[in-house]
Amino acid sequence: MVQIPKTPAPASPAPRSVPTSADVARLAGVSRATVSYVLNNTSAVRISEPTRRRVHEAAKELGYVPHAAARSLRAGHSRMVLMPAPSFPVGPLYSQFLGDLQMALGRLDYTVVQHGSVGLYGDEAARAWAELRPVAVLMPGSGLCPKGVTVLKRSGARAVVTLGPEAVEGAHALLMDHEAVGYSAGVHLHERGRSRIGVVVPEEGGLESFSAPRLEGVRRALHGTDATVTPLSLAYEEKSAAGLAARWRDLGLDAVFAYNDEYAMLLMRALQDEGLRVPTDTAVIGADDLMLGRLLRPRLSTVHIELPSGRELAELVDRAVRNPGAAPETHKVLGASVVHRESS
Amino acid sequence: MVQIPKTPAPASPAPRSVPTSADVARLAGVSRATVSYVLNNTSAVRISEPTRRRVHEAAKELGYVPHAAARSLRAGHSRMVLMPAPSFPVGPLYSQFLGDLQMALGRLDYTVVQHGSVGLYGDEAARAWAELRPVAVLMPGSGLCPKGVTVLKRSGARAVVTLGPEAVEGAHALLMDHEAVGYSAGVHLHERGRSRIGVVVPEEGGLESFSAPRLEGVRRALHGTDATVTPLSLAYEEKSAAGLAARWRDLGLDAVFAYNDEYAMLLMRALQDEGLRVPTDTAVIGADDLMLGRLLRPRLSTVHIELPSGRELAELVDRAVRNPGAAPETHKVLGASVVHRESS
Repeated sequence: MVQIPKTPAPASPAPRSVPTSADVARLAGVSRATVSYVLNNTSAVRISEPTRRRVHEAAKELGYVPHAAARSLRAGHSRMVLMPAPSFPVGPLYSQFLGDLQMALGRLDYTVVQHGSVGLYGDEAARAWAELRPVAVLMPGSGLCPKGVTVLKRSGARAVVTLGPEAVEGAHALLMDHEAVGYSAGVHLHERGRSRIGVVVPEEGGLESFSAPRLEGVRRALHGTDATVTPLSLAYEEKSAAGLAARWRDLGLDAVFAYNDEYAMLLMRALQDEGLRVPTDTAVIGADDLMLGRLLRPRLSTVHIELPSGRELAELVDRAVRNPGAAPETHKVLGASVVHRESS
Repeated sequence: MVQIPKTPAPASPAPRSVPTSADVARLAGVSRATVSYVLNNTSAVRISEPTRRRVHEAAKELGYVPHAAARSLRAGHSRMVLMPAPSFPVGPLYSQFLGDLQMALGRLDYTVVQHGSVGLYGDEAARAWAELRPVAVLMPGSGLCPKGVTVLKRSGARAVVTLGPEAVEGAHALLMDHEAVGYSAGVHLHERGRSRIGVVVPEEGGLESFSAPRLEGVRRALHGTDATVTPLSLAYEEKSAAGLAARWRDLGLDAVFAYNDEYAMLLMRALQDEGLRVPTDTAVIGADDLMLGRLLRPRLSTVHIELPSGRELAELVDRAVRNPGAAPETHKVLGASVVHRESS
């Protein structure tokens, strides 16, 4: 980093002490309890409008901000929904879903906090999350074990919801049915007359819980037919794609489900560079229905994936928080449908 | 969402009360202070190994997790670094940078928390962040005003660092010099003999603080030459790109800096569909050096952007936290260099 020379600035003032609710009470001429009632919008206590105004003005003048942690200590729980940051590379589809979800939870007056847990696994990660005392935990992927759920619940989380391929004991589950994605792709390729079908399995870490059920879905779709299914290991790098393309004729495949649109773009380019015609020699289909697929030539066929709406999921979280003793709910939340374009 | 019918599960046990440090103390046969010393790893107090072990075992047995908020209340500050989630669509380059940064801060024993602030602006957002009492705030983009910095500091934040195009009074600044990105692209296109240069300005919200300086950089690069610079409004949609491409011959442009690689891919496809040859008729250059650019035909020229390393930035945060009275530092942190491929 380059330090930019600049005109000497006056040294910043010595850090003032942080204003407390006692300072606000003194300035407003009321008790600390009154300050707390007013600023936390407690409806149980009647406080006159002029007093409320005086408290708000004093808080503003002093720059007093209530302390979420202190409030949650008093209340016994917070409004914080913790979302461990996913350990897998997040695509545009998933980013959009997370944004919607955060907005929906915000409307229900929850504060959504994302917490990276780089380098932490299993229980250890659950303990780090538990330290923040979230009222609910929304866990994407498959990084939570039943013991982690217990740690979180014991530390006060009223709801633990997993968003992944399998339900975890003690937690609500939104089952992302990735088998359905592979199944749709498999049925489509078979209907298009293909019978020697490759399935890309990304080498990148953290994607197994998506790629394994997608592969299984293709197998299930072709079960009982004479079609073969060949798993193809592929890293998200040009070199890896070129290597796979160079072996393509020996593999004798006439179609490939390429895990998602980004891997499909990578592999389709390598196949074309190898002189293979798409779809004549090999049909290619991706998944996620990204815009880039429509920009490729031939236009990429894809499996459109419908994620649950942020609103529905936010409502499940809220329901679970209000009723922490209820039996865990399990919902299937993933829709899959083929968008047939030119590559298959 | 589809409710999955399932075999009736036993109702989950009534929520137990959350174990406290007093419970741990009782089980281990030590004082609460001892529990606190052991679990917070205080080195100021000598405690025998067997006692330490007893406390850890009791905590484990009860499922006790220290309360980060309670600890921060006692300590007067937390180890929480708050990163407001960016209000702009985040690309792969920036995601990678955020991941590195979180890991580097984690190594320095900070907990990084990302906080969405959908629908909050200015002071209001700063107050929502201040409620979490972070020890430091790392603000991407340009959503913080000097008053927001004051709110955060008064509530106890020892360091506020902005990561954006301009410094904000009272905060440390890592200046992302997006002018340099546009400047590099402008110089390159001019050196390649182009003189009627379009610059894509995305219509999507939240990108102005990047697109405006990039445009300005192109202007600066061509200042004093006979080249012209034409801003081109473009939404990240096929229809918008097709509309722009249809007007291309009337615009009489021979080159375009397309904001980034994703917009470049979109526009290049639309130009090709319109029968324009790239680069013969129009040179195209993007920015970000994404892999997709190497997969396009012609291969996309791009501006490679070098973000600061997560480690350097983490060290700045740590330095600022340790010395909250120091004058704000300002660093330029963005390197830009052209990667010339086939499209320009």
